[in-house]
Amino acid sequence: MNAIDAKFMRLATDSAPGQEVRQHAGDIRNLFRGGELPGTPVDFSHGDVDAFEPTPGSFKAFAEGVEIGGAQAYTEYRGSGGIRTLLAPRLAAFTGADVSADQGLIVTPGTQGALFLAVASTVAAGDRVAIVQPDYFANRKLVDFMGGEIVPVRLDYLGCDDRAGLDLGQLEDAFRSGVKVFLFSNPNNPAGVVYSGDEIRQIARLAERYGVFVIVDQLYSRLLYAGSDYTHLRAQDIDPDKVVTIMGPSKTESLSGYRLGVAFGSPRVIERMEKLQAIVSLRAAGYSQAVLQTWFAEPEGWMAERIVLHQAIRDALLERLRAVEGLGVRTPQAGSYLFPQLPPLDVSFADFVRLLRHQASVTVTPGTEFGPHSSASIRFNFSQDRQAAVDAIGRVAELVSRYRSE
Amino acid sequence: MNAIDAKFMRLATDSAPGQEVRQHAGDIRNLFRGGELPGTPVDFSHGDVDAFEPTPGSFKAFAEGVEIGGAQAYTEYRGSGGIRTLLAPRLAAFTGADVSADQGLIVTPGTQGALFLAVASTVAAGDRVAIVQPDYFANRKLVDFMGGEIVPVRLDYLGCDDRAGLDLGQLEDAFRSGVKVFLFSNPNNPAGVVYSGDEIRQIARLAERYGVFVIVDQLYSRLLYAGSDYTHLRAQDIDPDKVVTIMGPSKTESLSGYRLGVAFGSPRVIERMEKLQAIVSLRAAGYSQAVLQTWFAEPEGWMAERIVLHQAIRDALLERLRAVEGLGVRTPQAGSYLFPQLPPLDVSFADFVRLLRHQASVTVTPGTEFGPHSSASIRFNFSQDRQAAVDAIGRVAELVSRYRSE
Repeated sequence: MNAIDAKFMRLATDSAPGQEVRQHAGDIRNLFRGGELPGTPVDFSHGDVDAFEPTPGSFKAFAEGVEIGGAQAYTEYRGSGGIRTLLAPRLAAFTGADVSADQGLIVTPGTQGALFLAVASTVAAGDRVAIVQPDYFANRKLVDFMGGEIVPVRLDYLGCDDRAGLDLGQLEDAFRSGVKVFLFSNPNNPAGVVYSGDEIRQIARLAERYGVFVIVDQLYSRLLYAGSDYTHLRAQDIDPDKVVTIMGPSKTESLSGYRLGVAFGSPRVIERMEKLQAIVSLRAAGYSQAVLQTWFAEPEGWMAERIVLHQAIRDALLERLRAVEGLGVRTPQAGSYLFPQLPPLDVSFADFVRLLRHQASVTVTPGTEFGPHSSASIRFNFSQDRQAAVDAIGRVAELVSRYRSE
Repeated sequence: MNAIDAKFMRLATDSAPGQEVRQHAGDIRNLFRGGELPGTPVDFSHGDVDAFEPTPGSFKAFAEGVEIGGAQAYTEYRGSGGIRTLLAPRLAAFTGADVSADQGLIVTPGTQGALFLAVASTVAAGDRVAIVQPDYFANRKLVDFMGGEIVPVRLDYLGCDDRAGLDLGQLEDAFRSGVKVFLFSNPNNPAGVVYSGDEIRQIARLAERYGVFVIVDQLYSRLLYAGSDYTHLRAQDIDPDKVVTIMGPSKTESLSGYRLGVAFGSPRVIERMEKLQAIVSLRAAGYSQAVLQTWFAEPEGWMAERIVLHQAIRDALLERLRAVEGLGVRTPQAGSYLFPQLPPLDVSFADFVRLLRHQASVTVTPGTEFGPHSSASIRFNFSQDRQAAVDAIGRVAELVSRYRSE
């Protein structure tokens, strides 16, 4: 196999969220214990934007963008100057540190676009990059695609409840070994845990000490549950030219269909990201950019209500999951992911994920997508219709009992 | 300078179309001969979608996509199955060879997205890639970013009028030297010339003989002027697993604000492109994908009228350009680009482009963007308001006369 074949082999997307439709059922029925479980199909691989609808006014903002015409269709590669001028102070207020609309902010096609550009702008072939395990599946693939070398750092999220559980000793060892870039999501995707103030300050201190560039994916940082604190890395004691923060309105705000994300921070890296965006996709869709006017400017109380509704679903699902003997799960402090660890089963976890889909009409993302030590875990995005989700978790519990190792 | 700094230095976008707003005027006024030329500013760096509006029904299709909700927001990475099923037979009919909706077609964020994915899926570090000079500026940058080695092939578009002018001997030499991939645009961007049937068949023959993979960017192939023939490479005698064709509705159909493109052909490469899209941008904006329903299904006569209107502008501008002594320009057979070669001037061509912008309110793209031998040429996208464009060309002619070398 030549180098490019091997590279694409490692980019496998067969189990990625949303790609399940391309899988063949194969002979999974041969493994069935008992019959199919009836119920409303639930796709936990992503949020249901029909259950939690896009931000009020978002479509109107898009329509107005189309009306504007050419000026909205053809923006600078880094996004419309007017939109950046509007967003920069909102992002600064949210994160607690200045954002330069002209030099330090880029609009991208989704946060995925921002992640790709940030990694490709900082990681060269052979560079060592620290990656948390478990963390968002694309982080590892992006580093691999750029020819970087992954240095794993453990997140013991099940072993504590007052912090995310990052192994700071291992992080320092990694940094000391010559890591150039540290990439992580906060809250962690898939576990939903938020890094404590102390953890974030330690990350800042170590990055300063070892000269490491940090990319922090804060996609879910607005959906923060009661009793949780959030610490923004970029507002800590850290060189502002060594941090890029990534956010976007695809999740909490349900605007995924418009493909919008932003990256802000280091002007040097933002400039590279724009150069690269010019050859990767030119720009985020011009008309879609207009939708960002609604971001951080939602109607009074709208976000608070969205948080309360998600928290209620979280708690209802946790109650049912915790009734399953031998299952381990931590309460997420932000975002809409649950990442339970299953008890030992008589089938492989990969087959169990297929059984969930074909026997119980429940689609989940296997833990192996998030790291090599998470094969016993499955990820649920619980931004769903509440009753349908609760019923679906009941079917998951029933299948666990059918396939459990005695 | 380290490797990644150098890589981004070569990705300079300062003179790229649409980025002029980031340039500083500097001391250009010191070079002025005579005063400013008044007139409606014209930005020839891209088409004016206010002069040529998006396809009828495109916004309605988008709005219906938003109404569909989650199913339209979250498609497979390669794009909605329903949209692909609709498009495949239309693309097959247009190009004269089968397209597999399931295995051989991907929807991307613009044709730029398709180009990036196609190059990144076929070019590994060290691979030799044949690139036409002049050709679309991103072609060269994409190969460079992937670490490929560019093998230039000359297009003598000014030296003939019965074919595009590709140096087929040089192409064969390039292929014989171990080129893995050949990437070119047809019609050529910037020159607007269409490859003859004989040139396309020779490309197919040489690609077969030397096992070269061909990526052909046919973005402008629908805007074909009276008296011109177009030959689709993929319909020739060539291994269908060794060709990817790229198109999109951003130009002729003025749908750039939605960011839509497609690539179709080799299932092996389309599959790689999907894997890569998963980490680069996930998918083309879901709601935007719905707009592709209008593509190749425009109202009766709409495309024919659009072609006639563009041809009239082309001819009006050519008449004025040809009145400028010493200026060389070939009649474009398709698309909306004119690429005249200027006579010798007393200022550098780079300064002349800045003078056009600051003294005459005319924005053009310098020829250096398209290849190292085109510094005396400038590119105009003439998809503009006709009168404004004609007046602007008058100002260009006036400035040529002011700065001409005697």
